[in-house]
Amino acid sequence: MNESKKALAYFQSGGPTAVINSSLYGVIEEAKKHPEIGDILGAKYGVEGLINNDFVDLRSIPEEKIKLLQQTPGAALGSSRHKVSEEKGDFKAIAQTVQKNNIGYLLVNGGNDSMDTCFKLAELSRKNGNDLKVIGIPKTIDNDLAETDHSVGFPSAARHVMNMVKMVVLDASAYKEGKVVLVEIMGRNAGWLTASTDLLSDNERPDLIYLPESPFDEEQLLRDVKEIYEKKRFCVIALSEGIPVHHEILTKKDPFGHSSLEGVSSSLAKLIKEKLGIGVRSMELSTPERADPAFVSLTDRKEAIRCGAFAVKEVTAGQSEKMVAIKRISSKPYRVSYGLVDLAKVANAVKEFPKEWIVSSKELSNEFKDYLTPLCSKGIKVSLDKNGIIKSLNLLK
Amino acid sequence: MNESKKALAYFQSGGPTAVINSSLYGVIEEAKKHPEIGDILGAKYGVEGLINNDFVDLRSIPEEKIKLLQQTPGAALGSSRHKVSEEKGDFKAIAQTVQKNNIGYLLVNGGNDSMDTCFKLAELSRKNGNDLKVIGIPKTIDNDLAETDHSVGFPSAARHVMNMVKMVVLDASAYKEGKVVLVEIMGRNAGWLTASTDLLSDNERPDLIYLPESPFDEEQLLRDVKEIYEKKRFCVIALSEGIPVHHEILTKKDPFGHSSLEGVSSSLAKLIKEKLGIGVRSMELSTPERADPAFVSLTDRKEAIRCGAFAVKEVTAGQSEKMVAIKRISSKPYRVSYGLVDLAKVANAVKEFPKEWIVSSKELSNEFKDYLTPLCSKGIKVSLDKNGIIKSLNLLK
Repeated sequence: MNESKKALAYFQSGGPTAVINSSLYGVIEEAKKHPEIGDILGAKYGVEGLINNDFVDLRSIPEEKIKLLQQTPGAALGSSRHKVSEEKGDFKAIAQTVQKNNIGYLLVNGGNDSMDTCFKLAELSRKNGNDLKVIGIPKTIDNDLAETDHSVGFPSAARHVMNMVKMVVLDASAYKEGKVVLVEIMGRNAGWLTASTDLLSDNERPDLIYLPESPFDEEQLLRDVKEIYEKKRFCVIALSEGIPVHHEILTKKDPFGHSSLEGVSSSLAKLIKEKLGIGVRSMELSTPERADPAFVSLTDRKEAIRCGAFAVKEVTAGQSEKMVAIKRISSKPYRVSYGLVDLAKVANAVKEFPKEWIVSSKELSNEFKDYLTPLCSKGIKVSLDKNGIIKSLNLLK
Repeated sequence: MNESKKALAYFQSGGPTAVINSSLYGVIEEAKKHPEIGDILGAKYGVEGLINNDFVDLRSIPEEKIKLLQQTPGAALGSSRHKVSEEKGDFKAIAQTVQKNNIGYLLVNGGNDSMDTCFKLAELSRKNGNDLKVIGIPKTIDNDLAETDHSVGFPSAARHVMNMVKMVVLDASAYKEGKVVLVEIMGRNAGWLTASTDLLSDNERPDLIYLPESPFDEEQLLRDVKEIYEKKRFCVIALSEGIPVHHEILTKKDPFGHSSLEGVSSSLAKLIKEKLGIGVRSMELSTPERADPAFVSLTDRKEAIRCGAFAVKEVTAGQSEKMVAIKRISSKPYRVSYGLVDLAKVANAVKEFPKEWIVSSKELSNEFKDYLTPLCSKGIKVSLDKNGIIKSLNLLK
């Protein structure tokens, strides 16, 4: 430990994204340029690393390995959904860790819930009168963080979702007598990711798109599916995990007597099969949505790195209780700037998909297309090992 | 129609692969070089196009579009699982189509079941005394075609599966208190695809690998999961859809009173949750396994194209009732040759994963690694549209 300098600590929080480790890369590279920063500490397993004084010395990782963070899936430092609380003694433990490691700067890379944690840590520091500065780096595939044009990680997840749904549609359309296929996409509270499938062109798009923000009418859904299937002999439905289906559809008990582990797509698949007697398949795109390096958006990766670097610059300049936010200057050409917003405004807020952008269950508005297209248009190149597997860096080993 | 020349017809059959359209590309490019070939006809929806005299004129597609077949997911001409039968009048209808279009050469791009169709059509032609020559082009992600070193489409699917499972493992390992995650992979009769996850290195591989060819013992599975979870606090299981679980696990009725639509992973997830009381998630990699252009293997694509071209050369040279097969000359360096094998030996046969390559439920043999590595090591570059979506060619429009 270097006593004359302040350490910078960083942790990852909540569900990973395909570019969360690119933000970590940006943090490390920028932090190395700052002589006022001593140790660069990566907390293991999110805030738990701070509670348990469990860190990776990020300065010690060789440069050629650090580069791999840009294509490493998952949270390279581990993550956590732990809610910090006074009763559990978390704040006391964290204060001890901060003092012990001479931490002056803390960066929290996460989504809505994590920004709440970030806010609490910043508040605590202020109340304790110590000079720990705390800044949040935005991250969520759900794109539901408030006060920023978009969330880092969303464009890459959108690229994954668009391309996977295209594959599913082409697969479904390959048979003369096809099926109804339900594709469940992440998003409990906001439908941005499911909405991205609206960018697909006519013969490769889902027939129906259901977001949590869409009105949901079971009878209307069945009528639509029937009509589409009779015309095309297949029907693909893209739906968010959080669509507001009637509670009873989801709460049926399974054969073991407890509530089903199934998602909404599986439940609706049964309903459609039962009511319409058509062949049905359901699938969840699942974990790869928040991890797939092959579909990382170049813009997203660059912004992830820049948000990380920007956070380092601002926190060392004395800023605190803020989150880095992206402001869009223009869409054509695509230009953005970076700024800071109050954590208090972001913590636990949800930016829903605008209802006025929902034209119908079959189509979204052109405003949405103009918003999304520049975020996703370019891909990246990944480097592979001898088995054809994407190389990565695991800092938890 | 050119009366002095014989037409070449081609159809796609069974489930698609990520490179089935690359074989179509190879067929078209090679066929154009043969002056003895008149029309180049793509049957729509597999053998149904032959029955219904429903074709795409493949000569009329511009070259820049044809190239896109190399990265087009799904079956660009449509596919079919229709079983040809005398009773339905299929053979009579096909004979009429052949005569009407002056078809002298027929290529069938498919897996085991499709090679049976291919064999029946070849037999029919011989018995009718007409000079239709029929050759099969091997294709299946399952790698279970007999008489060939490997099946075209398998290496790309294996690359997709390996990389997706790596993402799932990294995701699962990111939490201090993780879950048991079951990943279901295609393969009803053979476990080649699930086995591919054995190529992943120590911190990114599944803890348990179950193939249809593996012994399955419920008590052993539960003991293994418990032991692994207690040590690591997470556990990832890669399993084939066709693993031989006890019938009763799968046949429980769902809340609507009919058999569940669920796969084996979902059923086993419930079992593990019930018996061990640990958090469990299950997922199916599903359709993208047989479609993902982002993980196409360069070797697989080249071989797909060459198998298509080789079939054209052989069928115009008078060969019939054969399937193109790949023979491996050496693994280090990787070298293969192409030859023909009797359709009769391939039709409906299944090449299982060798039992002697299954070391335990935790590991496969080095022989398997040496077999698979050269098939998967290199990737391809894909071209994108302005929205970041992989470009493709749909011939069914």
